[in-house]
Amino acid sequence: MRAEAKTGQTRKPTMSNKPQNIKGMRDHLPKAMILRQYIVDTLAGVFERHGFEPMQTPILEYAETLEGKIGDEEKLIYRFDDHGGRRLALRYDQTVPLARVVAQYPNEITLPFRRYAVGQSYRGERPARGRYREFWQVDLDLVGSASPLADAEVVAIIDECLTALGFTNFTTQLNHRQILGGIARVSGLGEEAAGGVYRAIDKLDKIGADGVRQELLQSGVAEDAAARILELVQLKGANGDVLEELSERLANDQRALAALDNLRAIISGLDAMGVPEQRFAITPGLARGLSYYTGVVFESVVENPPMGSLLGGGRYDELIGQFSGRALPTVGLAFGLERLHDVIEELGLAPQITLADVFVTIFGPDLAGAALAVARDLRAAGLNAEIALDPAEKLGRQFKHADKRGIALAVVIGPDELARGEVVVRDMRSGEQRSVARAEVVQAVRTARAANH
Amino acid sequence: MRAEAKTGQTRKPTMSNKPQNIKGMRDHLPKAMILRQYIVDTLAGVFERHGFEPMQTPILEYAETLEGKIGDEEKLIYRFDDHGGRRLALRYDQTVPLARVVAQYPNEITLPFRRYAVGQSYRGERPARGRYREFWQVDLDLVGSASPLADAEVVAIIDECLTALGFTNFTTQLNHRQILGGIARVSGLGEEAAGGVYRAIDKLDKIGADGVRQELLQSGVAEDAAARILELVQLKGANGDVLEELSERLANDQRALAALDNLRAIISGLDAMGVPEQRFAITPGLARGLSYYTGVVFESVVENPPMGSLLGGGRYDELIGQFSGRALPTVGLAFGLERLHDVIEELGLAPQITLADVFVTIFGPDLAGAALAVARDLRAAGLNAEIALDPAEKLGRQFKHADKRGIALAVVIGPDELARGEVVVRDMRSGEQRSVARAEVVQAVRTARAANH
Repeated sequence: MRAEAKTGQTRKPTMSNKPQNIKGMRDHLPKAMILRQYIVDTLAGVFERHGFEPMQTPILEYAETLEGKIGDEEKLIYRFDDHGGRRLALRYDQTVPLARVVAQYPNEITLPFRRYAVGQSYRGERPARGRYREFWQVDLDLVGSASPLADAEVVAIIDECLTALGFTNFTTQLNHRQILGGIARVSGLGEEAAGGVYRAIDKLDKIGADGVRQELLQSGVAEDAAARILELVQLKGANGDVLEELSERLANDQRALAALDNLRAIISGLDAMGVPEQRFAITPGLARGLSYYTGVVFESVVENPPMGSLLGGGRYDELIGQFSGRALPTVGLAFGLERLHDVIEELGLAPQITLADVFVTIFGPDLAGAALAVARDLRAAGLNAEIALDPAEKLGRQFKHADKRGIALAVVIGPDELARGEVVVRDMRSGEQRSVARAEVVQAVRTARAANH
Repeated sequence: MRAEAKTGQTRKPTMSNKPQNIKGMRDHLPKAMILRQYIVDTLAGVFERHGFEPMQTPILEYAETLEGKIGDEEKLIYRFDDHGGRRLALRYDQTVPLARVVAQYPNEITLPFRRYAVGQSYRGERPARGRYREFWQVDLDLVGSASPLADAEVVAIIDECLTALGFTNFTTQLNHRQILGGIARVSGLGEEAAGGVYRAIDKLDKIGADGVRQELLQSGVAEDAAARILELVQLKGANGDVLEELSERLANDQRALAALDNLRAIISGLDAMGVPEQRFAITPGLARGLSYYTGVVFESVVENPPMGSLLGGGRYDELIGQFSGRALPTVGLAFGLERLHDVIEELGLAPQITLADVFVTIFGPDLAGAALAVARDLRAAGLNAEIALDPAEKLGRQFKHADKRGIALAVVIGPDELARGEVVVRDMRSGEQRSVARAEVVQAVRTARAANH
């Protein structure tokens, strides 16, 4: 609805014209939407406790801004010409727009810049379980600091977020791009082969060690090098032991040793921030697809259900500065809201949220005023009160509506109650009713509501 | 970035290649975004106290779903073919998607259906002050009730929303489509002329009575009819008097009389809901552009600044049912978030919101652990604590950062404080510092924060 709209012909769609949402782009009806808001509010609460602030950019960007950043996947971008012939595109993430903003408003942004963003992105790929063409991400980035404390803070925030959402059995896997690089190098491979190695390792969870071995061999890696790589990326154990082992195996690679020192500094920060050690695991096989990472990379997984990662991120010191023409070391992450939503539902972690606390019935036309006054008092006290709209509707039907809406309590004022200065409060589940003084209706609803929770 | 950017090839941005947001589509940096979230949260809080629930639909719809609803303005829709050759469109409002959803999920939606939606819409028009190509709307609709109590509830919600946002000098103008229709009819005009009359009257505020007269004459309305129309649409006074006057003037038009009765019923509902009478005004000249309204229409305006309406809405009993093939009487409204944002800023109604309560400095590398532990305690107590990230950075520079960020308090733990089991709390505005026991840091920050507010 918009004020400027002018009249004109309207064409009436017919019944045969059954409209649908676009495949891969979901409608979020209230029940789902309430859960999504709870998730976003929980995450944003943690972010803000760390001083992160919200930011928002348009869904559309000039196509040129988005192009040339994600390689092959670029073909999935939705692009079109606008009314003025400008080439526009729907964003496919919130990271490139962040890079644009940081370059565009240098005087309005104080570094280090802590920002979060909640919004949709778009990729024109084939929809599948957990993969949508419109998907929501909750992004968090800390721009302008190369300190390991910045990495540690982001990982600590992950831990706080998942805990706040009720997860107990999760692990955040940590790795570093230069550990992977070191593994490739000590296995005798040059930089040009590294990309193929990362891609192969990335599939370890999906295709297993033998699958990765096949893939490495096919991409021209020698048999003994592949064996060495596979052994190293599957190292498991206490974090200290894994770091120790890697230090020995990568002792000849200066960059890998620096990466290990960097991980040790991050772990020391995590310890000072109170993150329990069993909740993160140095995982040398964690590759993460995106080519722009330069330092630590991480993912959080739950064992059950086996849904893949709930979030992923890492340090990427080059991308944000691309538009600005100066280095802007950054660490960030993105929660996938669709997957988070699905896992929370599957694990039953979702709190029962019914927004309306009480349904205020209207006994009859003469009693509408009394009912509306009660609703007003309940709302003034901060309670969510939904009212009946048809004073001529039978009380039984009004109760039925309250039931269907999942509202736990109803209030009734009939002529007798009105005469006695009373109100009936009904528990919709048990059908139990009790009369209370009109002046005490707020307290009575509050008590009944608390008892129901 | 040039508007006429070439398609297809990828090109790496260089420093000379300065990326920009698309004209008419705004970036919302944290300061603005925090205000917008405050506005949305305030509105949603009022909505939920009335039992309305959030819903969300994709930004994209099949073009066919959106076409044929808004007449001439249809040319402003952004449309394109996706990767599979399907014709898609960016939504231009949240009302047509609501109609689609109501038709698509009949078993999941309980009528009457109270839902709100917060989201972007798109129109490819020339940007101007207050007019954007991407704009946010906060929509509220009550689907499936023809009761005047439904209209009254929506108007009462407007009143509560604007009051909650701090507006004091606002009026909600009320009119009814069949009063306008009656005015046209008693002036001797047929239905076919009514559209032109509404369009002319709609401009009363902008072009004045003489301008409207000219326009009516030009569209073929006779001079005496134009005079009668202008007299009626400019009726002013107490609501009862205006209704009385209209009843006399429109006494021969049954539909107008029914409309007046409907307005009386709505006003009686508003009274029962506690809306002060001086805050709404029967305004026979209020036309509202959209052709789909069938009953009451309303707009809220502030006298100062003269920014036009903050919101608009009304009853539209035919649109929502179009896809379902059954009548679904509906009343709804849309707040324009852009305008609301601008007016609230201009009137100084925006609360001072700084998300971070305190900045935790790091005195030096050896003291990072102590500082991080303080930050952790502050956060566990629900305070928003931002930390320094570079332990080697001079304290003065850390203070400077806190200042630039607008954070009112800082915490310092130097070696002396650590030895004494103390913490320094610094007021960033006055520069005043005081030492408190480490165990009392949360209480000290809370007290200082409260004193600052």
